[in-house]
Amino acid sequence: MRQSKLFLKTSKTVSEEEPTVNGRLLEQAGFVSKLMAGVYTYLPLGLRTLNNISKIVREEMNAIGASELLMPMLHPKDVWQTTGGWDNIDVLFKIQSRTEKEYALGQSEEEVVTPLVLARVQSYKDLPLAVYQINWKFRDELRAKSGLLRGREFLMKDMYSFHTSQEDFDRFYSEAKEAYLKIYTWLGLVAKVTEASGGAFSQKISYEFMVLTDAGEDDILYCEVCDFCVNVEIAEVKLGDKCPKDCAGTLAQAKASEVGNVFDLGQKYGKDFGLGYTDEAGEKKFPIMGCYGIGISRLMGVLAETMNDEKGILWPESVAPFRVHLIALPGKEAESVFSASDKIYRQLTDLGVEVLYDDRLDVSAGEKFADSDLIGVPHRLVVSQKTLALESLEYKKRNESESRLVKLDQVAEIL
Amino acid sequence: MRQSKLFLKTSKTVSEEEPTVNGRLLEQAGFVSKLMAGVYTYLPLGLRTLNNISKIVREEMNAIGASELLMPMLHPKDVWQTTGGWDNIDVLFKIQSRTEKEYALGQSEEEVVTPLVLARVQSYKDLPLAVYQINWKFRDELRAKSGLLRGREFLMKDMYSFHTSQEDFDRFYSEAKEAYLKIYTWLGLVAKVTEASGGAFSQKISYEFMVLTDAGEDDILYCEVCDFCVNVEIAEVKLGDKCPKDCAGTLAQAKASEVGNVFDLGQKYGKDFGLGYTDEAGEKKFPIMGCYGIGISRLMGVLAETMNDEKGILWPESVAPFRVHLIALPGKEAESVFSASDKIYRQLTDLGVEVLYDDRLDVSAGEKFADSDLIGVPHRLVVSQKTLALESLEYKKRNESESRLVKLDQVAEIL
Repeated sequence: MRQSKLFLKTSKTVSEEEPTVNGRLLEQAGFVSKLMAGVYTYLPLGLRTLNNISKIVREEMNAIGASELLMPMLHPKDVWQTTGGWDNIDVLFKIQSRTEKEYALGQSEEEVVTPLVLARVQSYKDLPLAVYQINWKFRDELRAKSGLLRGREFLMKDMYSFHTSQEDFDRFYSEAKEAYLKIYTWLGLVAKVTEASGGAFSQKISYEFMVLTDAGEDDILYCEVCDFCVNVEIAEVKLGDKCPKDCAGTLAQAKASEVGNVFDLGQKYGKDFGLGYTDEAGEKKFPIMGCYGIGISRLMGVLAETMNDEKGILWPESVAPFRVHLIALPGKEAESVFSASDKIYRQLTDLGVEVLYDDRLDVSAGEKFADSDLIGVPHRLVVSQKTLALESLEYKKRNESESRLVKLDQVAEIL
Repeated sequence: MRQSKLFLKTSKTVSEEEPTVNGRLLEQAGFVSKLMAGVYTYLPLGLRTLNNISKIVREEMNAIGASELLMPMLHPKDVWQTTGGWDNIDVLFKIQSRTEKEYALGQSEEEVVTPLVLARVQSYKDLPLAVYQINWKFRDELRAKSGLLRGREFLMKDMYSFHTSQEDFDRFYSEAKEAYLKIYTWLGLVAKVTEASGGAFSQKISYEFMVLTDAGEDDILYCEVCDFCVNVEIAEVKLGDKCPKDCAGTLAQAKASEVGNVFDLGQKYGKDFGLGYTDEAGEKKFPIMGCYGIGISRLMGVLAETMNDEKGILWPESVAPFRVHLIALPGKEAESVFSASDKIYRQLTDLGVEVLYDDRLDVSAGEKFADSDLIGVPHRLVVSQKTLALESLEYKKRNESESRLVKLDQVAEIL
């Protein structure tokens, strides 16, 4: 993509109003634009990054056999009355139409997915079954001051599974847990799995996937030796205690952001809707359901929040909006520099490499480098009069401080 | 994709409540599930089709130099007050939060895109510029009884362009018009370009792209010889009149569905927000803006509505959820039949062909064929005991009545 054609403006100034690093950096680097607290436009760079995260999540959900679909965001009141959510979920946005009809905006989709799936399930032979979607959710948050970490409108992958037994739920839950941990590894994040309370409707324990970050809105206690981890909300231990798993470690406390969760929903939703399946004996049973969330836009915020230096963002290769930032420094020989860099741009693009090509004419080298560091594309290539005299270009990774010369005909190899 | 793993149930029965062909067929074939009037879940087949349509639209918008971004659906009240839309647009959904804050749900995005873009435009050098998104819109429709043709929640591509002169707008408008006509051609549709009224705020004429279909909600008059076409709403001619373009044709009248539109917004939105650019003389000017819509989910409805026979849908290759429907008829030799069809499935998938593989064990041949015709995948391959005895499989296009035998090793070639 030619930078001159891309709708992109970076900014030198930092918004004072934005208290979090991710909110400031993503605005400054031209990834997002805040419409109001917790509600963002995703500019071209931001949309590409969001799509890359979605792609990783989608692949892992497909790999555990879940089918992707897309449910509506506008819900009729009656399904939310059926489950009790209409009166009990305080973040539910409610709408009254001009014909006095009432709707809710989806903040989770048990109310839609349960009747949808169970209308298509006749017998135990149709189970287990898992469906998921990647779609926007809405929450009437009182405060939304954490950039992309807490949105009033946010992108989420939500999966729902249906089982004939607790054992089968447990089997699928561990597959989903492994898939989640794979996703975080792809993103370069280390997530801790914590026990937490089960939310508004569940007496069961739920699991949260937490990434340590000072901008996080949760507090967790974790063992410095083993994998014990618990949300402070439900902890029966405290900072400095010995690890309850007897591993000889002690407990540390940290701020964390919840980048995924799993709820064992039990039979609540099947019972609420009176919908079930027929078991081997011909009797009607309610399925055990699970709900599995991953905050896609929040993950983008967590990555910007935790992967940066004083110059800007350092995107992991897996989600960076582009793989290579090709910078042409036309100097006094614009024609030959652009001719050479155009050629490299075409060559890399033909190889399927995603290149952001800074082909701007009237921008100084300093400004181009500053923009590049701010945006955070993993690999940087610079073409100038000086490098061309050596039949080379300059190559540097975003996280390296020194660049090196690479021969023009070896560019493809180093990437 | 193995059909046994896909969340898909077709239905033999037709919903009597659904008055349109597209609503009935898409539900029956398992593409969508109606949550309420005008609001649908897109099941796996439907989501794939919708994504394929989006992909075609996206490519053509990129080709005319527009940048893709994604704007929020939840809008603050003040931007809608600024333009007068809050009080004047009757289909605008309004939301009151628990803190008494008011929001609107996006039904078009001039209110968001104008301040977003103009905050990043300083001078005439930054123009022209076009951005677009593919995102869900919401309209508080009084009636929504046309399946996917009129949604309360619907997927739309909306593009906005910004220009320094009417001439430059006209130039871009004709590029956009050509792009639109290309898109319809890709989809196998013939769209007529009509003049229509400019909507709530514009005194200017707008253009609508119309596909003839009895389920359409517009009435158009068109010349049987030349390309004259006008919406009956604003027509100064009537059925049977001579064509006003003096081409010797006479005017016919038909129902049509609007699958795209273009509005010349003039300077209204820049003026409303007090945002503009600096021209060559250093003076502040308001840009000429254009708005260009294409209904993605509506196009899916129009395709199902117009491309079908008594057995089901006939998707064009460009948007079909799969290219090939591979059907295994295990009969009494399940093992050898599945072994051969598994091999073909892998072979085609490795070649990048998208295959829906009916690997179901306990389903009759008749039911498999009926499902296949209903779903409407363009190419059908059948593997059975009988075809294997001839080292062949049976090949048929969805729109052909006779199948023919093809040697196993020639499958890839015929596709």
